[in-house]
Amino acid sequence: MIIVMSIESTDAQIEAVIEKLDGLGFKTQVIRGVKRIVIGAVGDRQALDSVSLKQMPGVEDIVKIMKPFKMVSREAREENTVINIRGISIGGEGVVVMAGPCAVESREQLLTAARQVKAAGGHVLRGGAFKPRTSPYSFQGMEEEGLKLLKEASEETGLPTVTEVIDEHSLQLAHDYVDIIQIGARNMQNFRLLRAAGQTDKIILLKRGLSATIEEWLMSAEYIMSEGNGKIILCERGIRTFETYTRNTLDLSAVPLVKRLSHLPVIVDPSHATGDRQLVVPMSLAAAAGGADGLIVEMHPEPSKALCDGAQSLHPGELVGLIAKLTKMMPAIDRTMSV
Amino acid sequence: MIIVMSIESTDAQIEAVIEKLDGLGFKTQVIRGVKRIVIGAVGDRQALDSVSLKQMPGVEDIVKIMKPFKMVSREAREENTVINIRGISIGGEGVVVMAGPCAVESREQLLTAARQVKAAGGHVLRGGAFKPRTSPYSFQGMEEEGLKLLKEASEETGLPTVTEVIDEHSLQLAHDYVDIIQIGARNMQNFRLLRAAGQTDKIILLKRGLSATIEEWLMSAEYIMSEGNGKIILCERGIRTFETYTRNTLDLSAVPLVKRLSHLPVIVDPSHATGDRQLVVPMSLAAAAGGADGLIVEMHPEPSKALCDGAQSLHPGELVGLIAKLTKMMPAIDRTMSV
Amino acid sequence: MIIVMSIESTDAQIEAVIEKLDGLGFKTQVIRGVKRIVIGAVGDRQALDSVSLKQMPGVEDIVKIMKPFKMVSREAREENTVINIRGISIGGEGVVVMAGPCAVESREQLLTAARQVKAAGGHVLRGGAFKPRTSPYSFQGMEEEGLKLLKEASEETGLPTVTEVIDEHSLQLAHDYVDIIQIGARNMQNFRLLRAAGQTDKIILLKRGLSATIEEWLMSAEYIMSEGNGKIILCERGIRTFETYTRNTLDLSAVPLVKRLSHLPVIVDPSHATGDRQLVVPMSLAAAAGGADGLIVEMHPEPSKALCDGAQSLHPGELVGLIAKLTKMMPAIDRTMSV
Amino acid sequence: MIIVMSIESTDAQIEAVIEKLDGLGFKTQVIRGVKRIVIGAVGDRQALDSVSLKQMPGVEDIVKIMKPFKMVSREAREENTVINIRGISIGGEGVVVMAGPCAVESREQLLTAARQVKAAGGHVLRGGAFKPRTSPYSFQGMEEEGLKLLKEASEETGLPTVTEVIDEHSLQLAHDYVDIIQIGARNMQNFRLLRAAGQTDKIILLKRGLSATIEEWLMSAEYIMSEGNGKIILCERGIRTFETYTRNTLDLSAVPLVKRLSHLPVIVDPSHATGDRQLVVPMSLAAAAGGADGLIVEMHPEPSKALCDGAQSLHPGELVGLIAKLTKMMPAIDRTMSV
Repeated sequence: MIIVMSIESTDAQIEAVIEKLDGLGFKTQVIRGVKRIVIGAVGDRQALDSVSLKQMPGVEDIVKIMKPFKMVSREAREENTVINIRGISIGGEGVVVMAGPCAVESREQLLTAARQVKAAGGHVLRGGAFKPRTSPYSFQGMEEEGLKLLKEASEETGLPTVTEVIDEHSLQLAHDYVDIIQIGARNMQNFRLLRAAGQTDKIILLKRGLSATIEEWLMSAEYIMSEGNGKIILCERGIRTFETYTRNTLDLSAVPLVKRLSHLPVIVDPSHATGDRQLVVPMSLAAAAGGADGLIVEMHPEPSKALCDGAQSLHPGELVGLIAKLTKMMPAIDRTMSV
Repeated sequence: MIIVMSIESTDAQIEAVIEKLDGLGFKTQVIRGVKRIVIGAVGDRQALDSVSLKQMPGVEDIVKIMKPFKMVSREAREENTVINIRGISIGGEGVVVMAGPCAVESREQLLTAARQVKAAGGHVLRGGAFKPRTSPYSFQGMEEEGLKLLKEASEETGLPTVTEVIDEHSLQLAHDYVDIIQIGARNMQNFRLLRAAGQTDKIILLKRGLSATIEEWLMSAEYIMSEGNGKIILCERGIRTFETYTRNTLDLSAVPLVKRLSHLPVIVDPSHATGDRQLVVPMSLAAAAGGADGLIVEMHPEPSKALCDGAQSLHPGELVGLIAKLTKMMPAIDRTMSV
Repeated sequence: MIIVMSIESTDAQIEAVIEKLDGLGFKTQVIRGVKRIVIGAVGDRQALDSVSLKQMPGVEDIVKIMKPFKMVSREAREENTVINIRGISIGGEGVVVMAGPCAVESREQLLTAARQVKAAGGHVLRGGAFKPRTSPYSFQGMEEEGLKLLKEASEETGLPTVTEVIDEHSLQLAHDYVDIIQIGARNMQNFRLLRAAGQTDKIILLKRGLSATIEEWLMSAEYIMSEGNGKIILCERGIRTFETYTRNTLDLSAVPLVKRLSHLPVIVDPSHATGDRQLVVPMSLAAAAGGADGLIVEMHPEPSKALCDGAQSLHPGELVGLIAKLTKMMPAIDRTMSV
Repeated sequence: MIIVMSIESTDAQIEAVIEKLDGLGFKTQVIRGVKRIVIGAVGDRQALDSVSLKQMPGVEDIVKIMKPFKMVSREAREENTVINIRGISIGGEGVVVMAGPCAVESREQLLTAARQVKAAGGHVLRGGAFKPRTSPYSFQGMEEEGLKLLKEASEETGLPTVTEVIDEHSLQLAHDYVDIIQIGARNMQNFRLLRAAGQTDKIILLKRGLSATIEEWLMSAEYIMSEGNGKIILCERGIRTFETYTRNTLDLSAVPLVKRLSHLPVIVDPSHATGDRQLVVPMSLAAAAGGADGLIVEMHPEPSKALCDGAQSLHPGELVGLIAKLTKMMPAIDRTMSV
């Protein structure tokens, strides 16, 4: 950590800063320049969290050198975290495809979708039972009824399932029905929910918030991991920018970047990122080529009848085509499809 | 609503769209251009929420004409909503100042702050008991103990209080201790919490999310109001942009704009918006001159010892100066300070 | 085009709008709803550019249905524009790789780089002679001397060349020395320069501006094309967002999207988009998998000695590796490397 | 400057970095932490611009402590720069109002506008003769004919004038006709134009780019000043964000911030920032209350007939009202209107 002090700082002010840092176990060194005085401080920044160094007289700026995330960082664990779910590996050599409808709408719709995902070669079934919607007047999901259908679909097809939860109550409910618990973009900084998820033994799929920096996203994963649950899959799903032609802007560079910063698996959601069915296949291929550990895509047996997100849902045949393309492409970049 | 169809649409496709709209009670009219066919549809868009018109063959785009918010809109209620809190009006002619520390840290700190706010002429005491923090390792608030101190400070000074809640549990707790319940930027789309807030009889202070559009912000207010609680104060607190010199970018144009779109009061939080104490006073004056119904600013008895947000907290003397300036400025723009 | 009018508009106001539109050759139709009156207007929007319809009494909003770009749009030309440069096709089946140093620094540096690009299998040599720099104190390029070196390198290796111009003067100079003229992100809306480029017979590489929407980018291409030069290559190079971990945010969805909206070739610059050498190879593969017609990447014989952009420049060996990977991957997605 | 090195750096690597810095006249000091090695370096960063320190083995990051702008910085000059134009001071105690039409359209339109600006109490007449337009099919300005009309209007009313230039040619033309040369948002990083402006003796009004950081904006001013021309007025005119309800997002915090960082005057353009006539008056008051040295607003004798920007142009009567309000408000915040 670097403390930048005004050139007009008095010796007493500099001394006060050094004393405070010393008291917290930091090792310090002063560098006097022509326009600024700089104090280098080496130690445990966590100890510093509750002192307001920046407010001390003479202090102009504090520059942090170390990243604030710890347990999720690549430095804490050099090898990749590989998550195993009923025999499927996420975070290893193979690419995983999660697919299914935006929302569980009915028994028939979900079972049909599940069979189509299975037939296409998908690995995990997605389906929303609790839907966070911008408008209070929009369809809000089938709730527990939807969870039961997910379980039934899973039993029939053998596919593990993933569903979004929106509060502690839905988290508890979902716990008994699904394999992977998703925390959505809007709840990425719902810290209570993160802690609660960290106290379960479930795999957590943590989506990046619409306007979350990569650092904030990793800090949210840190919340989960600091509670004891390290089975976290990160999911890039587009950020909010000035461009309105697409629903969001898919930040694909975040994939190799986060894989460098963290040991956790990273998947991509091209459906929410683009909001445009025609862009889902090219962006899926791009994500896989760019190093993603998997994809989560929306597919509906009949997109034109979908209760939500129809415009970005693949037709069943398109999912078949996508997985065929991935299967052909992965070996060419020295990777595989997950088993 | 306007449905734009491809010039190559068949008559059967156009007919299918019209039929669907007719079935939902819409009145339609077709306009055939040289490059597009356009269908104008007049009716209740809510009825349409669950049909995927956009997916029908031939349809290229759907253009919505009406705003999606209803109860909070200026069209639903022409006159301003004025909220009364222990004799103080918010949303009327006068400007209201809410002030206090970021977090309740101790009995002494809070009581000192409360007396300073009172003495400076502030109207409402703010203080956080539940702190949503980016890092799991940061100070998370005194919780119920903090709420009790807020109540004590309110009883001593007569100031009404406002505090942030972060989930349904803290909402229930806070209900008995404070006058105004704040839903913070990170929870602006925590729809469960919005609904729960809508079911209370408390005044709700709804902050704009970091990356929320004005429309989404108003839709979140709609969630609260659709549950029966219309006592909502909106609060602009800066949005996330590419500029990093300030903590966020204060979107002051949103104030007169939202006052045009909605009947609800709008206040401004220049402390979180800028993250920089020196910018708080000029941006407070700017907000008031631009039409804000009030301000919520951070003030700490000793900012350099604050457990959070010290860099953006006013010194007590600065709050005195700010209110003095406002008191002098408001009559010059034909407004007043709230009683 | 749709003109939305207030429900309180008088008949005379509606009539006035219709009359104005009639006078401009539009065909109109009125739809009266419960909350708004809507006028559909079909005709040539260009004729309307200079009338302020939106200012007429009663008019609340104008919704444009047709895209504003014409000559560059896919509707104007269904088949892809394929640009031929000394036997290399850009915009066809094959992927093209342009590579070379950020700036031409010396004869030895450039000739070495050119030989390395050629040996690696690159198609076009890039090198900056005029450098637009944020600071007036930074290296601004070798100017005409650099252009001469590009010509020499091209003659020795047979590689066509691309260089950036920054005003009409440098455009004229570059005309005689290079094959492709680049207009950089900062000049994307330097309309004088666009027009001047449109009056040459050179291939123009038009980079997207840092904060340009896709529509504005295509409008800038329209400037060039409207002057008679249709040999335009579009280049996505990252947009400015709140994320600061990467230099910019590579908007890869723009690639398939622009290929749908326009017939022009689209290439990607992963070097400027990410600013991070380690991200260049994964993002290059992602771009190619996502449908890009080519790449433009920075490579320097010795990045650690580069006068600019060293941190994002590939080592020569990395370029060899990248092209080898592309060569293996392209057939797997039914495409090829350009000859 | 701080050089952060990996803990695994060898002594030779550290030595190499120190040697390079020594050679450039820097004074260095090494701090060895548990996870990083940090080198503090004090000296003239300009000397460093052309070496790629970041590329040296072992180096992980470089943290700059000093701001890159020099001549325009508050450190270079403590007192405000006050620019005098025909007896009007800009940058002193008084607030200046520049007003007039977006574009010069005709002799009658401009002379009428000029008289209205004069009568309302405005200080400077604005009017565009060269219009940078997104579409090549839009009205591009009257060019030299427009400049002549500006001169005539100035002679008749005694108002100084400001007009935008878009390249070196228009800069030369405008030089003889107007008092203040505006460089618009799209040309903020047209470095050739900045240099050329710096070589004139004219007052330069430099608008902030749509996506320019405050630092980049000040660096563009540095370009002008480094050529010898220090008569620069900065103008905040809104930045591009995700919010689409307003044309841009007015970043009003930038005003007091830039006044802290630089000695140059800062004015605000609420017309382009909001794109909405109804927001111009409240945002003008807000800007003045927030510390702006002046305003530049669009006013048209008949906005509904404006060839451009009609929707954001004030009616003449609205300008009268705005200046009356400012005149009443300024003394209440201890400032005045400019003479």
